[in-house]
Amino acid sequence: MSYIYLKNASELVTVAGHSEKPAKKEKMSDIGIIENGSVLAKDGVIIAVGTDATLQEQYAEEIKQAEVVDATGKIVTPGLVDPHTHIVYAGTRENEYAMRLEGQTYMEIMNAGGGIHATTRATQAASFEELYEQSKERLDKMLLNGITTIEAKSGYGLTLEHELKQLEVAKKLNEDHYMDLVSTFMGAHAVPLEYKEKPEEFVDLVINEMLPVVAEKKLAVFNDVFCERGVFTPEQSKRVLEAGKQYGLIPKIHADEIEPYGGAETAGEVKAISAEHLLRASDDGIKAMADNDVIGVVLPGTAFFLMADYAEARKMIDNGVALALSTDANPGSSPTLSLQFIMNLGCLEMGMTPEEVITATTINAAHAINEADKIGSIEVGKQADFTMFDVKNHLMLSYQYGMNHAQTVVKKGKVVVKDRHII
Amino acid sequence: MSYIYLKNASELVTVAGHSEKPAKKEKMSDIGIIENGSVLAKDGVIIAVGTDATLQEQYAEEIKQAEVVDATGKIVTPGLVDPHTHIVYAGTRENEYAMRLEGQTYMEIMNAGGGIHATTRATQAASFEELYEQSKERLDKMLLNGITTIEAKSGYGLTLEHELKQLEVAKKLNEDHYMDLVSTFMGAHAVPLEYKEKPEEFVDLVINEMLPVVAEKKLAVFNDVFCERGVFTPEQSKRVLEAGKQYGLIPKIHADEIEPYGGAETAGEVKAISAEHLLRASDDGIKAMADNDVIGVVLPGTAFFLMADYAEARKMIDNGVALALSTDANPGSSPTLSLQFIMNLGCLEMGMTPEEVITATTINAAHAINEADKIGSIEVGKQADFTMFDVKNHLMLSYQYGMNHAQTVVKKGKVVVKDRHII
Repeated sequence: MSYIYLKNASELVTVAGHSEKPAKKEKMSDIGIIENGSVLAKDGVIIAVGTDATLQEQYAEEIKQAEVVDATGKIVTPGLVDPHTHIVYAGTRENEYAMRLEGQTYMEIMNAGGGIHATTRATQAASFEELYEQSKERLDKMLLNGITTIEAKSGYGLTLEHELKQLEVAKKLNEDHYMDLVSTFMGAHAVPLEYKEKPEEFVDLVINEMLPVVAEKKLAVFNDVFCERGVFTPEQSKRVLEAGKQYGLIPKIHADEIEPYGGAETAGEVKAISAEHLLRASDDGIKAMADNDVIGVVLPGTAFFLMADYAEARKMIDNGVALALSTDANPGSSPTLSLQFIMNLGCLEMGMTPEEVITATTINAAHAINEADKIGSIEVGKQADFTMFDVKNHLMLSYQYGMNHAQTVVKKGKVVVKDRHII
Repeated sequence: MSYIYLKNASELVTVAGHSEKPAKKEKMSDIGIIENGSVLAKDGVIIAVGTDATLQEQYAEEIKQAEVVDATGKIVTPGLVDPHTHIVYAGTRENEYAMRLEGQTYMEIMNAGGGIHATTRATQAASFEELYEQSKERLDKMLLNGITTIEAKSGYGLTLEHELKQLEVAKKLNEDHYMDLVSTFMGAHAVPLEYKEKPEEFVDLVINEMLPVVAEKKLAVFNDVFCERGVFTPEQSKRVLEAGKQYGLIPKIHADEIEPYGGAETAGEVKAISAEHLLRASDDGIKAMADNDVIGVVLPGTAFFLMADYAEARKMIDNGVALALSTDANPGSSPTLSLQFIMNLGCLEMGMTPEEVITATTINAAHAINEADKIGSIEVGKQADFTMFDVKNHLMLSYQYGMNHAQTVVKKGKVVVKDRHII
């Protein structure tokens, strides 16, 4: 038996009460703060949550045996959950970033063979080990920034062989690393150059040759598609997502990132668990999402990094969409590995409150990857994943912007980051 | 004798060659990168800079005796210099931030007794020790973010007694902390409520009662004033700055932050070392700065945090203004303690390049606080202040945005942050 006791946080931010259903509207502001709060876990599972005084009295024996983490003067939240990443890739693209700052556009760079094509070439060329090592470095940085679970998409392989390689790397990292990775198959991430004139054939390939193997090998929980003009149409997207359902893969969809294209509506139709990006989602699309309980996963880092407009997060929340936030971590449009900065953008660029951005990176993010029964809040029975931030209250997390405040991270009841070090 | 050897950085970013005069125009892009670069220091002073191979050959004996910091695969820059902070204050204002996110304006909050008035009350009420402790915490975080020297302004005291307290705290922190603090007297930071109807009297007080004492006690190097409609006029600003000159205090000026008000022009007239903010500087003002070698200190974090427009940094650089960047660290309009994020904003919100933002936070920032003979670049004879960032090249610093990449910090030849820990 192994006990851990996080003791006396100035604010224990539990985000409790939303495990059954994602938090919507004003419920997103209900983050369940316990002042002078403590949490006790046994063998990686939370067994008590409350004020320090209460727990000291009721669990004196257990606390005596526990490893104690003193959180006095600091806040503790559920380990942050990043529900949309492309973390498994080879090669970085800082050269393209410099070109953009000199005035070139993202699309110009992509059409010259850069952009996603550059990452696809590098990912295809990389060995399993290279891909593993480069991705592991990024997971380390995410952990140091307080993230304990992420979703990880394939989609830079674009052939069966290399899509499987990406998913196998994610699987191995999930086994080896403190970080939990939940995998999404995204063969339909881009139309490979050689299928430019015959995209339907590539859709057939994804459906008939990739999906069955991915499913058989149990390499993914979700199936995602990039629904956007010039990439995949809503019709093609629907075909891919419906086919995935036949294999038990839960649909997700990249929707309405660049123009309104019926992506959010499609999400409603196929009853996707989440729709992502949504910078140009239509009012009908937002309604379709709210009506069908599709979670909106909004990625403001991408807008920041591409110097574009932001999604209408405020409007989505007010219209009943349960919102989650994510880094979109990827080499082209959002290389950050910090959800804390994404929270800053949620507040300062999208009109969200400091409470809403916490809900959006914990319990709602957990719902977006179908893990809310296990993670995303500090409640009895849940996995003991916590992040302790070196700030005195949750407002400071957004107020002292542009910084990494994560100091200690607990994963499955074990201290894995201590004083900004991975142990 | 004590040697330190920073060894084999993938990029040693020296920013050399600009110590005589601040870098302007295309010279701001000249950051003097040495690949596989090393630097050797003796008793806190740099004695050799070059490729690792060269130094290993020429300084074999010294290197044998040196403490070695392995920078393989990482970049090393001069310790970052933050040339504009209000770091010595009591009380934080995250509650006002939450009010702003709910729709209240900065001016509404200030007129209701919040804003700078709230900080003034808290700072006046704080004891020397409280002010010291709260400010020290912030210096720790700045050091962890790779900053090794800052400018620190008074201006929350607004009476002789409390202005002196603020400056004495800065002096003591400069003595005690690894961080170097260079002090600015800013009695003319705001018109106290009790002088609302007679601002000239407050200007007289600053000039006749505060300046002489501050100068006699040698508590400041610079003299700053907030030149803005509703605060101090250009005429009043000039009086304050010219009076300071009589006591040997070098003029600085908060100029044209909220509207074009002749602040940049005034900077040129009084030959200020720097003009700050400049969000609304006129073309004439920019020309006056360029002609009179006034450094522009631009503070994009303030625009980000107040959801306002940004200064025209690109235009200023193109018109011959030497530019520096700063956090503006203060409790109201910019609570961040990270210059790395300010660099991100320089690139993504103000059209600067990754090279220019490095120059703007090292040698040009050092010039803005008149310390360029000692810090701001990695050159023989300079103080051994370095920051090692956990990225493979300087582009990554801006590309992997919203994060703290500082891993090791050397101050005056001593390792003061090691693996994200203050030693």
